[in-house]
Amino acid sequence: MTTDPRDAPAETAKPGLDQQQFLSILSREEALLRFEAALFPRPLPRETVALGDALGRVSATDILSPIDVPPFDRANVDGFALRAADVAASGQGRPVRLSLNAETLACGVAPTLPVAPGTATPIATGGVVPRGADAVVMVEHTEPAGDGGVEIRRPAAPGQFVSHAGSDMAAGELLLRAGTVMGSREIGMLAASGIPEIPVTRRVRVAVLSTGDELVQPGEPLGPASVYDTNGAIVAAAISENGGDVARLGAFPDDEAGLEAVLRTALADNDMVVLSGGTSKGAGDVSHRIIDRLGAPGIVAHGVALKPGKPLCLAVCDGKPVVILPGFPTSAMFTFHDMVVPVLRRMGGLPPRAETQVTAHIPLRIPSELGRTEFAMVSLVQSEDGLIAYPTGKGSGAITSFTQADGFLRIEALADHLPAGTEASVTLFTPSLRIPDLVIIGSHCTGLDRVLAPLAHKGRAVRTLAVGSLGGLAAAKRGECDLAPIHLFDPRTESYNAPFLTEGLELVPGWRRMQGIVFRDGDPRFAGRSADDAVAAALADPDCLMVNRNQGAGTRILIDRLIGTARPDGYWNQPKSHNAVAAAVIQGRADWGVTIAPVAKAAGLGFLPLAEESYDFALVTARRDRPAVQDFLAALKSPDVRDALAQAGFRPA
Amino acid sequence: MTTDPRDAPAETAKPGLDQQQFLSILSREEALLRFEAALFPRPLPRETVALGDALGRVSATDILSPIDVPPFDRANVDGFALRAADVAASGQGRPVRLSLNAETLACGVAPTLPVAPGTATPIATGGVVPRGADAVVMVEHTEPAGDGGVEIRRPAAPGQFVSHAGSDMAAGELLLRAGTVMGSREIGMLAASGIPEIPVTRRVRVAVLSTGDELVQPGEPLGPASVYDTNGAIVAAAISENGGDVARLGAFPDDEAGLEAVLRTALADNDMVVLSGGTSKGAGDVSHRIIDRLGAPGIVAHGVALKPGKPLCLAVCDGKPVVILPGFPTSAMFTFHDMVVPVLRRMGGLPPRAETQVTAHIPLRIPSELGRTEFAMVSLVQSEDGLIAYPTGKGSGAITSFTQADGFLRIEALADHLPAGTEASVTLFTPSLRIPDLVIIGSHCTGLDRVLAPLAHKGRAVRTLAVGSLGGLAAAKRGECDLAPIHLFDPRTESYNAPFLTEGLELVPGWRRMQGIVFRDGDPRFAGRSADDAVAAALADPDCLMVNRNQGAGTRILIDRLIGTARPDGYWNQPKSHNAVAAAVIQGRADWGVTIAPVAKAAGLGFLPLAEESYDFALVTARRDRPAVQDFLAALKSPDVRDALAQAGFRPA
Repeated sequence: MTTDPRDAPAETAKPGLDQQQFLSILSREEALLRFEAALFPRPLPRETVALGDALGRVSATDILSPIDVPPFDRANVDGFALRAADVAASGQGRPVRLSLNAETLACGVAPTLPVAPGTATPIATGGVVPRGADAVVMVEHTEPAGDGGVEIRRPAAPGQFVSHAGSDMAAGELLLRAGTVMGSREIGMLAASGIPEIPVTRRVRVAVLSTGDELVQPGEPLGPASVYDTNGAIVAAAISENGGDVARLGAFPDDEAGLEAVLRTALADNDMVVLSGGTSKGAGDVSHRIIDRLGAPGIVAHGVALKPGKPLCLAVCDGKPVVILPGFPTSAMFTFHDMVVPVLRRMGGLPPRAETQVTAHIPLRIPSELGRTEFAMVSLVQSEDGLIAYPTGKGSGAITSFTQADGFLRIEALADHLPAGTEASVTLFTPSLRIPDLVIIGSHCTGLDRVLAPLAHKGRAVRTLAVGSLGGLAAAKRGECDLAPIHLFDPRTESYNAPFLTEGLELVPGWRRMQGIVFRDGDPRFAGRSADDAVAAALADPDCLMVNRNQGAGTRILIDRLIGTARPDGYWNQPKSHNAVAAAVIQGRADWGVTIAPVAKAAGLGFLPLAEESYDFALVTARRDRPAVQDFLAALKSPDVRDALAQAGFRPA
Repeated sequence: MTTDPRDAPAETAKPGLDQQQFLSILSREEALLRFEAALFPRPLPRETVALGDALGRVSATDILSPIDVPPFDRANVDGFALRAADVAASGQGRPVRLSLNAETLACGVAPTLPVAPGTATPIATGGVVPRGADAVVMVEHTEPAGDGGVEIRRPAAPGQFVSHAGSDMAAGELLLRAGTVMGSREIGMLAASGIPEIPVTRRVRVAVLSTGDELVQPGEPLGPASVYDTNGAIVAAAISENGGDVARLGAFPDDEAGLEAVLRTALADNDMVVLSGGTSKGAGDVSHRIIDRLGAPGIVAHGVALKPGKPLCLAVCDGKPVVILPGFPTSAMFTFHDMVVPVLRRMGGLPPRAETQVTAHIPLRIPSELGRTEFAMVSLVQSEDGLIAYPTGKGSGAITSFTQADGFLRIEALADHLPAGTEASVTLFTPSLRIPDLVIIGSHCTGLDRVLAPLAHKGRAVRTLAVGSLGGLAAAKRGECDLAPIHLFDPRTESYNAPFLTEGLELVPGWRRMQGIVFRDGDPRFAGRSADDAVAAALADPDCLMVNRNQGAGTRILIDRLIGTARPDGYWNQPKSHNAVAAAVIQGRADWGVTIAPVAKAAGLGFLPLAEESYDFALVTARRDRPAVQDFLAALKSPDVRDALAQAGFRPA
C-alpha cells in the first residue's frame, strides 16, 4: 500500500545508528494503553462561559432547570380565560354570556383579579392564566356581547389552550449531563431556564511545532531542496476540529539546544505538545533525546506496529502528553487521528469522535504485511452491487493519500493481503458520505478540471480517481464509474482508444494533447532543431541525460519509437507523469524528455512537437442517461469549456 | 401533534383584528420559492483569510496547485542515491561496490554533484535525488566498504524509494473547488502547495432580536408574568452553526417607533435580520407593519401552510432578508431550519446542509390536519424490528419538543393522519444517530436522574421518554424499551405496579414517593392540621381553591378518595404533573393540591403527608442481561445513588 520504508517490518531492521529507537515495537493497542494509563484519570480544568459563548463547548457539570418552564400556566391563544364548567352547555345556537373582568392579560402582565364563576378575563397568547380559570377559548370562537360581556359559542375542555407550569421543563429536571457538547438546542434549553452562564471544561491548549531543516512556511519562497511545512498546518486544524486551542510555534531546524529551549517553553505554557517531525530520521532523534529529559515518565511508546505510522513516539512529561508524529503526512495524520485525537478529546471532556462505518467491496487485491495492523486509505464509489473501496495508491509520503480518501479499512496483523472482492468495513473520515453524482475513474488530465468546472458550480458532486487508462477501463467494465478517461495507443491500428472498448462501452471524444520534446530554453542541443535532429544530437552526447516515462504510458511508446534500441543515460529514470518529466528537466536532473505542451508551457520549457495523443472517454452506455452524465456531455461541447481547454493548450476534438 | 392554535386551519380563521395577516396563506414550497426568487442570484462578497484562519470557511474560487508536490524527485528512505543499472547484478553473496560522491544530501540540501555510473551519494529521507540517480537503496541494505565506498547487497528497481516531482499534487492540478468548506484536510493540501491565504466567501452577518413585553434575558430576575428569551439564544446559536456571524441585539418591547429605529439600524449594519417574535400576536403585528416600510419588495410570504410554523413571515428589504419567526419555540426553530437556513447557507456560499434520513415505524397513530404540510418531531428508539419514532407530545409551544427530538417526519397536506405501524422516513437533526445503550420509556421522576448519573458518567447513552406509566408499559410490551418506570395503583388489590405486569415483564423495585397536601406556608386552613382536618376545612371554605390532577394519574385516585363526591372550586384545573400543582399553589392560582414531598420541598410549600406511592420499573426480561441494564440495576442498589435519592426526598425500596 505504501512505499514508506519507515514502515518496514521490525524484524528486518538491523541495529544501527538510526534503528535503536525501534528495538521495542509495541502493538497499536498496547501503545495506546500505556499512553492513556500515564495520563488518566486526571482532573479536567473548568471555566465558566456565558451562554452566548457556549456553542461547541462541553458542559462540566450536570445542569438542572432552576425553574418551571413555562413558569406559570400559560395561555396558548389570544382569547378569554374562563371556567370550563361555565360554558359546558354552550353551542352554536346556545351562546353563553360571561361578564368580563376589569383587566386584560397582555403578555408580561400579572393577573390581579380571579376568574369567578360567570366571568372571563381577556388574555393574550403567552399570558398568565388567572386564579379560578381552568381553560382558555380562542377569540375566534367568541362574539362581543352588548354590555362589556362576551358570548361563547362552543364548550371548552378543562385545560384547553393552557400550557401548565413546568410542562415543558420542570424545576429540578435534568437539562443536560456533564460532558454534553453544546449545540443550539442545548443552548435553547438553558436560555429557557434562565441560565446565563455555565461551567465548561477548559479547552486543551496544544503547542504545535515542526522540525526539519528543509521546512518552509506557506507563502515563503521555496528553496531548491525545501518543502512546505504541511503537517504543522493540518495538525493545527485537526486540533481545532477536535476542540483544542492551538499555539502554532512554526518550524525549527534540527538544532538540539535551540529545540530543547523551545520545547521546554511549549510544555510549560500548554497542556500538550505535538511535534510533527521533518522527514529525516535525524530530526526525530534530536527530538527523542530532548523529550527523554523533559519530565517523567517520558517516552511511553516509540515505534508502533501500525502501518502507516510506525515511527510514532508517545511521551508523557510531568503529566502532559508530548507526541512526535511521523514525518510523512499521511502517516502523521493517520496516527494523529488514531492515537492522539482520543487523548485530546478525553482531556477536553469531549466524547469519542462519532465514527461512521460503511461496508464496501474491494475491487483489487490489497497486499499487506504480516505482523502489523495496517490501515488502507480508500476512496469510495457506488456500483450497482454496493460501495466499492479503491485504495488510494500514493503511499504515506503523499498528503493526498489522506486528504483525498473517504476513509480507511483495517487489515489485521495476521493477514498478508485482502483478496479482490473482499467485503470490508470502511470507517469514514466524515460523519456522512455524499454519494457522487458522477464518477470518473482513469487517467487524469488538468484539462478534465476545466470540463468539470460547470458541473461543480451547478452543485454536482464529482468523484475523480486517477488510476491510469487501463485501470479506468477495468473499472468501467465492472460498472464502477460513469466514464473512464483514457489515452491508449494501439500500435496495430495506429490509432487511439477506440480499439480498446468492449461491449457496453462507447467512445466520447475528448481532446488532443500535443506531445513533444522538452528541454531547458536555449539548450543548443535542442533549440532551433527539428525533433529528429534534436534526438540524434542528444543520443550522440554522452553528457546528455534523458528522463523516460513508465512502461505502459502512451508517451512511452512514442519515446521508444524515437530512440529505437538506444539506451541513453537516464533511460531508467521512469516517472509516471508529465509533470515529473518537466520538473526533472527544469531542475537539471535531466536534459530532455517527452511531455505534453500545456505542461511544458507552464514549466517554461522549450518544446519540440512530436505527435498528438487523444484523450477520450469510455462511457458506460447504461449510464448515459443519468443527469450528471448528460451535464458532462453538454459541458464537453460547450463553447466556454472548449475555449478554456484551448487556452490551456489542449485541442478539443 | 401540537396545541398551538396559531397553527389552526386557515379555513376556520375568520377575518378579524388579528387574522388579516393570514388571508393569503402560501404553500411551504411557494413561500420558499418567492423568498429565494427575491434574493438570488446575488454576488457573494469575498474576503481573503490566512490559511490558519480558514477552518470552516468556504473557498470563493477554484484553487490550483501552483507547484509540484513534492517539488523534486524525493528520497523516501535514508540511504544512497544510485543508478539501478549499477546494482542489477548484486545479491546477498555478490555485493556491488560503489564509490561515494563527496556530498551528503541531508534534508534541505540541494545536490551539486551528479551520480555518475559506479557512484552513489548518501541521501536522507526527504532529500533531493541528484542528477543521474534513478533509485535509492535503504541504508539497512548496505555495508560500508573500506575506502569510503559502499557495498550494495540487493538489486534496486528503477524508481525504488523515489517519489517523483508532482506525484502527490501536480502543478496546475485542481486542489479545491469554489464552494468547498475548508476542513483540516483541505488546509493540509493548501499548505503542501505553499498557499498562505485564500479567498473565501464573507460570513453572512445576521442581526437577531426578539420582541415581546414579557421577555427577560437569562440571568435577569423573572417577573411574575415574564418568561426568558429563548428564541434569541437558540436562533443566534443556530446561525453560528450555519456559518453566520451573529449580532445579538436583545429583546425589545412592542413599541412601534422604538422597534422601527432598531430595525432600520439592524438592516443597515447587517446582511440579514431575524426577529423572533414574542408569543403575542400583537407583537407580530407591530413588526409586520414596520417591515412593510423598510424597503422593497417587502413581505413576500406571510402565513405558510406549514405546521408547526404557520405565522412565519418572510420579507426582502433592499435585497436583504428580514424574517419574523413564530413566537413558539418549536415553531420558530423548525421554520428557521426549514425555510431560513437554506437561504442563510446559500448567501454564505455554503452547500445545503447534509440531511440524514432513516426509516422508522410509528408506534401510535399521529393525527394531522388536511391542507397543511405537517412535520412531527420524533424521538427514535431501537426495537428488534428496527427504529421506532415516538412523536414528542408537548406541542410547538414547548422548546423541548424541538430540542429533545432526534428529527422529524413529514405528513403530506392531503393526509389527515398517519396510522400506527406506518413506515416513515425521518430526517435527523444531527448527521448521525447514536443508538442509545439504554432506553427508558414511561413516567418520569427527578429521582430517575440520580440513578442514571453514574451510567451517563460511565459513557452509557441513555434515552428517556416521558409518556406516562401506561404508555411506558405498552412500549415495554412492544419491546421498544428496556425499562418502563411506572406508578400505577390497583384499587382491587390496593397495591402498586405488580398487578399491571404481563408476561415477559418483571418488576424492579424503585423508590417510594410521599404524596401529600401542599399549601402556602402559614395558611391557617392547613398549617398544623391533620390531612383529614385540612381537607374538611378546605371543602368548607367557598373561597378555597384546589388544583386537581389529570384523570389516570395515581395521585388523582388519592385525591378522589380524599374529596369523595365533592366538586370543590378548582376541581377542573387538572394539570398533568407534580410541578404544575406546586406552581399553581405557590403562585396563588390555587390554595391546595396534592403533590410529592420532593416537589413540595423544592417549592417551599407546606406539606401534609398522605400516602406513599411506589415508583418501580417494569423490566423487559429478555433485555435483563444487556450491559447497560446491568449497570442500571447496579446503580439502583449503589449506596451513593440511594443516598442521593434519600437526600432529594425519595425513599429507596
